Amino acid sequence: MAKTIVTAAITGSIHTPSMSPYLPITPDQIADDAVRAYEAGAAMVHIHVRDPKTGRPSQDLNVIGEVLRKIKSRCNVVVNTTTGAGLGMTAEERLRAIPTFKPELASFNAGSVNFALFDIPDRMGIREWKYDWEKPYLESTRDFIFANTFKTMEEFARTFEENGTKPEMEIYDSAMINNAAYLVSKGLIKKPVYLQFVMGIMGGIPPSAKNLIFLYETARQNFGNDFIWSVCAAGRHQLPMCAVALSMGGNVRVGMEDSLYAGKGVMAKSNADQVEKIVRIAKELSIDIATPDDARQILGLKGIDKVTY
Amino acid sequence: MAKTIVTAAITGSIHTPSMSPYLPITPDQIADDAVRAYEAGAAMVHIHVRDPKTGRPSQDLNVIGEVLRKIKSRCNVVVNTTTGAGLGMTAEERLRAIPTFKPELASFNAGSVNFALFDIPDRMGIREWKYDWEKPYLESTRDFIFANTFKTMEEFARTFEENGTKPEMEIYDSAMINNAAYLVSKGLIKKPVYLQFVMGIMGGIPPSAKNLIFLYETARQNFGNDFIWSVCAAGRHQLPMCAVALSMGGNVRVGMEDSLYAGKGVMAKSNADQVEKIVRIAKELSIDIATPDDARQILGLKGIDKVTY
Amino acid sequence: MAKTIVTAAITGSIHTPSMSPYLPITPDQIADDAVRAYEAGAAMVHIHVRDPKTGRPSQDLNVIGEVLRKIKSRCNVVVNTTTGAGLGMTAEERLRAIPTFKPELASFNAGSVNFALFDIPDRMGIREWKYDWEKPYLESTRDFIFANTFKTMEEFARTFEENGTKPEMEIYDSAMINNAAYLVSKGLIKKPVYLQFVMGIMGGIPPSAKNLIFLYETARQNFGNDFIWSVCAAGRHQLPMCAVALSMGGNVRVGMEDSLYAGKGVMAKSNADQVEKIVRIAKELSIDIATPDDARQILGLKGIDKVTY
Amino acid sequence: MAKTIVTAAITGSIHTPSMSPYLPITPDQIADDAVRAYEAGAAMVHIHVRDPKTGRPSQDLNVIGEVLRKIKSRCNVVVNTTTGAGLGMTAEERLRAIPTFKPELASFNAGSVNFALFDIPDRMGIREWKYDWEKPYLESTRDFIFANTFKTMEEFARTFEENGTKPEMEIYDSAMINNAAYLVSKGLIKKPVYLQFVMGIMGGIPPSAKNLIFLYETARQNFGNDFIWSVCAAGRHQLPMCAVALSMGGNVRVGMEDSLYAGKGVMAKSNADQVEKIVRIAKELSIDIATPDDARQILGLKGIDKVTY
Repeated sequence: MAKTIVTAAITGSIHTPSMSPYLPITPDQIADDAVRAYEAGAAMVHIHVRDPKTGRPSQDLNVIGEVLRKIKSRCNVVVNTTTGAGLGMTAEERLRAIPTFKPELASFNAGSVNFALFDIPDRMGIREWKYDWEKPYLESTRDFIFANTFKTMEEFARTFEENGTKPEMEIYDSAMINNAAYLVSKGLIKKPVYLQFVMGIMGGIPPSAKNLIFLYETARQNFGNDFIWSVCAAGRHQLPMCAVALSMGGNVRVGMEDSLYAGKGVMAKSNADQVEKIVRIAKELSIDIATPDDARQILGLKGIDKVTY
Repeated sequence: MAKTIVTAAITGSIHTPSMSPYLPITPDQIADDAVRAYEAGAAMVHIHVRDPKTGRPSQDLNVIGEVLRKIKSRCNVVVNTTTGAGLGMTAEERLRAIPTFKPELASFNAGSVNFALFDIPDRMGIREWKYDWEKPYLESTRDFIFANTFKTMEEFARTFEENGTKPEMEIYDSAMINNAAYLVSKGLIKKPVYLQFVMGIMGGIPPSAKNLIFLYETARQNFGNDFIWSVCAAGRHQLPMCAVALSMGGNVRVGMEDSLYAGKGVMAKSNADQVEKIVRIAKELSIDIATPDDARQILGLKGIDKVTY
Repeated sequence: MAKTIVTAAITGSIHTPSMSPYLPITPDQIADDAVRAYEAGAAMVHIHVRDPKTGRPSQDLNVIGEVLRKIKSRCNVVVNTTTGAGLGMTAEERLRAIPTFKPELASFNAGSVNFALFDIPDRMGIREWKYDWEKPYLESTRDFIFANTFKTMEEFARTFEENGTKPEMEIYDSAMINNAAYLVSKGLIKKPVYLQFVMGIMGGIPPSAKNLIFLYETARQNFGNDFIWSVCAAGRHQLPMCAVALSMGGNVRVGMEDSLYAGKGVMAKSNADQVEKIVRIAKELSIDIATPDDARQILGLKGIDKVTY
Repeated sequence: MAKTIVTAAITGSIHTPSMSPYLPITPDQIADDAVRAYEAGAAMVHIHVRDPKTGRPSQDLNVIGEVLRKIKSRCNVVVNTTTGAGLGMTAEERLRAIPTFKPELASFNAGSVNFALFDIPDRMGIREWKYDWEKPYLESTRDFIFANTFKTMEEFARTFEENGTKPEMEIYDSAMINNAAYLVSKGLIKKPVYLQFVMGIMGGIPPSAKNLIFLYETARQNFGNDFIWSVCAAGRHQLPMCAVALSMGGNVRVGMEDSLYAGKGVMAKSNADQVEKIVRIAKELSIDIATPDDARQILGLKGIDKVTY
């Protein structure tokens, strides 16, 4: 069996500071948690940044650059920068990090979807807010579409290609695999396609072993053996879905973007807590964990020496 | 086995006049084709309207009213008015037909999706255009999202409820079933839920027997036995997907909104051509076709005497 | 789309004379019905024989030979002889027809299964019996296994190969596809593998669109594109399952071995009644029906000139 | 989430002494390993016995009784006695343990299947044999059917019922779930049905997440929520399939009946090694492990005070 890539999605733009005191906010916190995740076994970290003062999701290129350089100075983990960014940013804003930093790999959202966070406060029982922006930010998603039209996707694909950045296709529902196949058929995305199945966003496909297998098989039907896949799942489904993926020979993503917990009722104090758990499960299943360089080889990345940060 | 509802989607807003000389355009053509579909066995017709001069999709309430009255004057077929309407209309514009006409049933789109028509001209080999609007209209969908946020859906559901209009949930991918379940859980949509699986829109789930069964089972998981379903599929998949649905005990939608053909290489001269084909298949399978009043009972509709047109 | 093979399984060994006055019994009746099925569109007929006096399933080589010659003298339909034969026959007895007649194709049962007919009389409401053997024959299946061990299958495969007879693998449940793959991996069965999914035998997999797709996908997983498949289903599921198969690009088997009806509550007066129905459905779906020579080409058969009857 | 039952199948009748020096053979070894499995977290042990001198599978009632009493004297683990026993035993011999010991629960094989072990020596690279019986025993399965006709199943069900023994339905392929449903429909098996999905026996359904989900869903379709399930899988698939089951809320069986390994290339020195691994995985997934008394409650068992050993 090949080696398995563990990704840690360090902070994302879904959770807000009031939901966990451990959510990484500042460049130092994000970089520290990325390094700790790496030390725990993550070959890749998925990076969003936040306004260091308020914790609000941001796509500030200065902050991104600071985080990328801090991580790079301390370890060779593969850095996967977001182009999803935060709500309300334009496609242009979201894309800008690619030509600026020419990362080895970045997220590429494979279609449009209602990306709804408005039910999280109730589900988590959050009643007090540290910052004014949090509640309206979450509530605003009741009327929000995460917009990735075919035109946007074509533009993103060209920019990724020009900058030698491998796209990680974020798949929120089955049709997005078909969208990815369209981009491949037009020569805009190269094989092997790398798919991240994102389960459990309200508006997207819910997490279940059955749904994961459906996504996997839809990918097989479209790409034969010429794809690589990983799964991440929201909240309490994070580790169960990752365990199913491990059992199927897939790769896994954990991290505080997807869940603030590391076990039932136990808040993750760091992304590393979740990485450690899935690495222990992998070990019980005799699955070898990929190093960052293993991941580079598996995914065909250009190498950390070719980024511009 | 219960009776099967055949719906004919008369003209839609996907195809343009250059694609078929038989596409119904004027109120008379739409109403005539609706009546012919009814005579061929359709219990329900799904109605979009077009600008009578150019054939461009429209949500003009005067034209809609004219069509609804013409149909009602000639037969008791269930009329399912669209709230999808045409590209670029606001949610408010799309919804207006409900309070105006208080129809028995109307389409209710269960989420946001890239709704892309830009590849149709190439696939159909269309090179000459009757009207100036056609090519840009189709091409514009490269950058189009059919927008149905949770907020929009909540508003639509309230308006449907207030006007006694049963929603037909249009399902373009699996997560939309989950969206529908959310609306049910909030009391905004009443059971039994009526789902129309729409397969083969670029941006949505492709048509295949496997995908249809996945949608069906996802619905079962969410609604138990408390739902009614139908399928429609784009282009050459129209009749094969309907045949699978018939074999599974489901309902079917045909019509020139979904396909301009009635058999391989044979243009449908009327919606009735497609209705006749699926009715003949149903007959071979010993499946009874529902009358409009059967459909009213199956779907729990308020009755044609309670509409305001 | 390629042409579709319609097979008619003329009389089988499941139904008994008391169940239908139209069940073909004598060599002339069997041959006549085979020719009528051919005329209605069947490219292949699957042949069991019966004791002409009592209608009891038989593997009498003289009777088989008589039937085969009668059919051959009248048309070029592909004849698929059974090696399943009737209950209680040894594997050796069942196999003997292969070296004797060297048919182009014959059934090959891909595993052992409880093959139970004991519930048919109750389900069909049969209370009076024409022949003494019928009731005990059916009842005896309560304690019956249709035995096809790996050793038997290996012997059958060698004999088929030696005689140039293409095996039609009868698949009663999903594991039998794996059994077939084992035989392929040992070089005992050649690709493309030809699979007949037999649904609805008590003891085997029940008929449903979902189960059919599961079998199909299991075959894909094992054989890639290198297989050809058909489906047959017992009783009232016969035509619905065939309609699903047509919609999926598969081949179909009808016939009085599988169902005595041609529509709800309508007894088939001939195998041709069922062939006609599925051919009409295929026509509505714009599917071309294979001639016997088309079927020979699709399946890679040696030709009717190489049989020894 | 409810508690999860871990079963250890201590020695079975599949593996032979030459395959592992750690395979429990004597009553003391079997009882010791059962107790160690219990101590490691198993709520249930599945018991076969062997000839203490040669290690050959046996259904000797004296040996069974000795094992049962030894286990009972040391812990309250639920003992699940086999009625599958070893190859070549009659149904009567296999069943005899039920009236003799009136166990709380016993295995009940839900249909007939080619149960083939002949390929194990090659796959494991076994070239030297400790005992003369081993090689012919394994080779004999090339021509072996594990026979469980409907008549046998009806008799077993009656005997189980008379003795207050809960059946654990061993499911080797999907149709056996249908067989179990038949027995339930006749009142011969009581709900909730307890199903053990046995994956990876040659002749039965191969192990994969997809196949497991298919079995699970087939059970749902037949029994609604009124069933309890567990999975076991042969060889290297043991732990991956158990991990999928844990992620789905199912129960799991490990043990040296199914696999001689505890990790890649690491022979299990005891059944406890495998129990410990799956318990650690469960812990990482925040899943609570059932005690024997939890298992009794979940399965509705009569209690250890009502057995006759």
